[in-house]
Amino acid sequence: MDKDYFADGLSAFAANVRAGRVSFEAATRATLYRITELDPHLGAFECVDEARAINTAKAFDQQLASGVDLGPLMGVSVVVKDIIAVDGMPTTLGSNYSAKHLKLSEGRLIKKLRDAGCIILGKTKTVEFALGATGINESRGTPWNPWDAKEHRIPGGSSSGSAVAVAAGLCGFALGSDTGGSIRMPACYTGQTGHKTTIGLWPTDGVFPLSATFDSVGPICRSVADASVIHQCITDQEPLSPIPLEGLRLGLPRQIFCDDLDPAVEEYFDKALAALKTAGVQIKEFDLPEAAERESLFPAIVGAEIIAAITPAGFKQAYDKMDSVTRTRAKAGLDVKAVDYVQAQKRVHELQAIALAKFKDLDAWVSPTSLMQPVTVREIEQDEAIAKRALLSSRNTMPTNIFGHCAISLPIPVPESSLPVGLQVMMPGGQDTRLLAICHAVQSCLGAHAIPDMEQFIEQKAVV
Amino acid sequence: MDKDYFADGLSAFAANVRAGRVSFEAATRATLYRITELDPHLGAFECVDEARAINTAKAFDQQLASGVDLGPLMGVSVVVKDIIAVDGMPTTLGSNYSAKHLKLSEGRLIKKLRDAGCIILGKTKTVEFALGATGINESRGTPWNPWDAKEHRIPGGSSSGSAVAVAAGLCGFALGSDTGGSIRMPACYTGQTGHKTTIGLWPTDGVFPLSATFDSVGPICRSVADASVIHQCITDQEPLSPIPLEGLRLGLPRQIFCDDLDPAVEEYFDKALAALKTAGVQIKEFDLPEAAERESLFPAIVGAEIIAAITPAGFKQAYDKMDSVTRTRAKAGLDVKAVDYVQAQKRVHELQAIALAKFKDLDAWVSPTSLMQPVTVREIEQDEAIAKRALLSSRNTMPTNIFGHCAISLPIPVPESSLPVGLQVMMPGGQDTRLLAICHAVQSCLGAHAIPDMEQFIEQKAVV
Repeated sequence: MDKDYFADGLSAFAANVRAGRVSFEAATRATLYRITELDPHLGAFECVDEARAINTAKAFDQQLASGVDLGPLMGVSVVVKDIIAVDGMPTTLGSNYSAKHLKLSEGRLIKKLRDAGCIILGKTKTVEFALGATGINESRGTPWNPWDAKEHRIPGGSSSGSAVAVAAGLCGFALGSDTGGSIRMPACYTGQTGHKTTIGLWPTDGVFPLSATFDSVGPICRSVADASVIHQCITDQEPLSPIPLEGLRLGLPRQIFCDDLDPAVEEYFDKALAALKTAGVQIKEFDLPEAAERESLFPAIVGAEIIAAITPAGFKQAYDKMDSVTRTRAKAGLDVKAVDYVQAQKRVHELQAIALAKFKDLDAWVSPTSLMQPVTVREIEQDEAIAKRALLSSRNTMPTNIFGHCAISLPIPVPESSLPVGLQVMMPGGQDTRLLAICHAVQSCLGAHAIPDMEQFIEQKAVV
Repeated sequence: MDKDYFADGLSAFAANVRAGRVSFEAATRATLYRITELDPHLGAFECVDEARAINTAKAFDQQLASGVDLGPLMGVSVVVKDIIAVDGMPTTLGSNYSAKHLKLSEGRLIKKLRDAGCIILGKTKTVEFALGATGINESRGTPWNPWDAKEHRIPGGSSSGSAVAVAAGLCGFALGSDTGGSIRMPACYTGQTGHKTTIGLWPTDGVFPLSATFDSVGPICRSVADASVIHQCITDQEPLSPIPLEGLRLGLPRQIFCDDLDPAVEEYFDKALAALKTAGVQIKEFDLPEAAERESLFPAIVGAEIIAAITPAGFKQAYDKMDSVTRTRAKAGLDVKAVDYVQAQKRVHELQAIALAKFKDLDAWVSPTSLMQPVTVREIEQDEAIAKRALLSSRNTMPTNIFGHCAISLPIPVPESSLPVGLQVMMPGGQDTRLLAICHAVQSCLGAHAIPDMEQFIEQKAVV
């Protein structure tokens, strides 16, 4: 199997290229070979444009040789969730229904990445219309979680293919979108780092507007350090100096966020908190009962907005071709009353003020990203209780979107025998650079992410 | 009858006080006497706080004598539409239903006026919940239009009492609010000047939120010159230098805006345009078919928002006590679907871009403010065709709110035998100071507003 040149992070890759240890073309070809070899087993991609990627890599090699260095993202292989338009690639929205009438065209985010030297390899699978946290998509396929070759475990969603591509070493980083956890959930279930940026901070033109109220885009990547490099490139915001853990005050809304955890999630989350405490972090518990309001606010707002995005006529046409869970969730949006929508929006504004006030004396909040580890697709299909629990699993991520916060999910180190567990760190909207700095310190303390052994994955998967 | 000390404008009043020709107390007492004498015939007021007004006026006289001059609005009598909270005065919202649960409290706008030295005399009548352009309010009474003592003509709405108070000389100026024409329509029907400010430019906290999407507040006053003084006080935006009419390019969307005009409206509007042309203005006709979309957008957005503002439970309680027309219009909001609301909001955003592009090569747009002159309350009650026409009369004002523009209605000079006719000038949002400068030039060209003879009004009304 070809080498994953991005495994040690974007800065290491950049240094290796400048030191002549690898060319952009060689790294791109290696990544494309890995996709060819692995993706038939993973199903993370909707499409790949090999020819354009290799041509771009060659041009960048020449550019760099002639002294033009575009910076740390130059020649980095990027894959894009298939609700984001990229010139020359179709946009399926994870659906068999053609939403061409939406006329999505490449927006400022992709342009910014291209200007920074990113090489767009292809589009990654998404839950249909980006509506769902498990990653399951009956319409166009559910990517395999690379942490289990024998069982088809959920990758998390809706940015399912993006997370799988990162975990399996099929890109430098991936773009996702997050309306209720769609970056953090798959990052959590695949053991990667996902940054749900503050709404409005990254441009969203050219992105399917699932919910204008709650959508934002962001990266799924290997580490907070990588997320920092990417965030700086998109926003031109300078990273902050390192923040010491000593004296850091992290709020823990134990009620709701720690209810009913998988035993393994509880165990490793507690161990992570213990490690942070040893490093001098203060963990302060506080009450956040408002988080429960996601149950009424999300269906009212996102339900109505997704139908408006596809149009009621479009939804009617798409209906028979749609994933059954997504269809049922979206259908409820048809019946939401405008009055309830307007009142929900007002409540969101009130909650944003209430939640902000609860950061008094706290630098950030922490919680498990999900209450569970990734279950199998079969369990969800066959066991109603597990299916319900999986639907509930965005309980901890949705409040961030409602409160207007930014958040990062980063992997908590677990034994080799365990499936991934994620730690979520949340901060007020607009504080993304500080969030990155705090998460960098947290990740340095807890330890780096593990990398699934893809050689072994292929061997085991071949046996199945 | 006591003298109207504000009849010659706010600058003249300020100069008269500084020259010692009148004190704040004397002017306030005179205004209060006029209210006592005239308002029983007009019904413009919900409440008046004489004692506080006189005490404040006395204090300002002492302050000025001691050398503290608060500026051009010092000691000016102000009346406030009764959907705006003022400390110490009840807020009825023009309804017999008590909306105390809304907990409206005095906001930044009233505070700004107080800081500028304004004396708040009282609250003025409004159409129930500010929803309606005729000025009729079956719940709490319809003010008389002072231009006709013999017949009860509509004052225009929803800022009905505010406009009547200005026209009859019962204040220095009045505050109104405008969601679809509620400042411009009553200004038009009473022969006054009304400034619908750009949404968001004047603070609206403490104002009943009929529609967060379309609401703005602004003054009804005697002249554009007065509106300029007031706007500068609220926004701290400096007025622009005079703008010459020579070469000014005014767009006229004749289709829709000039359809089906009352013959007198057509005649005086054409005469006004002719006068402007003589002064060097270019009138350029252009098509604005998008203005017709108000018919679907307004019920979807304002209908849902008013019910959300009162709450569905509150509306249910209010229902039996409400004005029949307002009730019917508001009730439709209960059934609006969230999807239609969200799509209407999207369309509003699209239309704002489309409308803005149509200002290319145009300094401002002009139209008649209303297609009609003020009819009688009885005609509306008894003649269905006239009732429909009256409901249609905000056709020319609503597009401003949808497009996100600012606009001023100013009186077109008419013969003494005629009822008032209004000229509407519209500009892109944010250009209020330029709008004021252009309207000042237009008003200087057309001539000042006429003042109804209130002595004669009382004599004739007494006879009725």
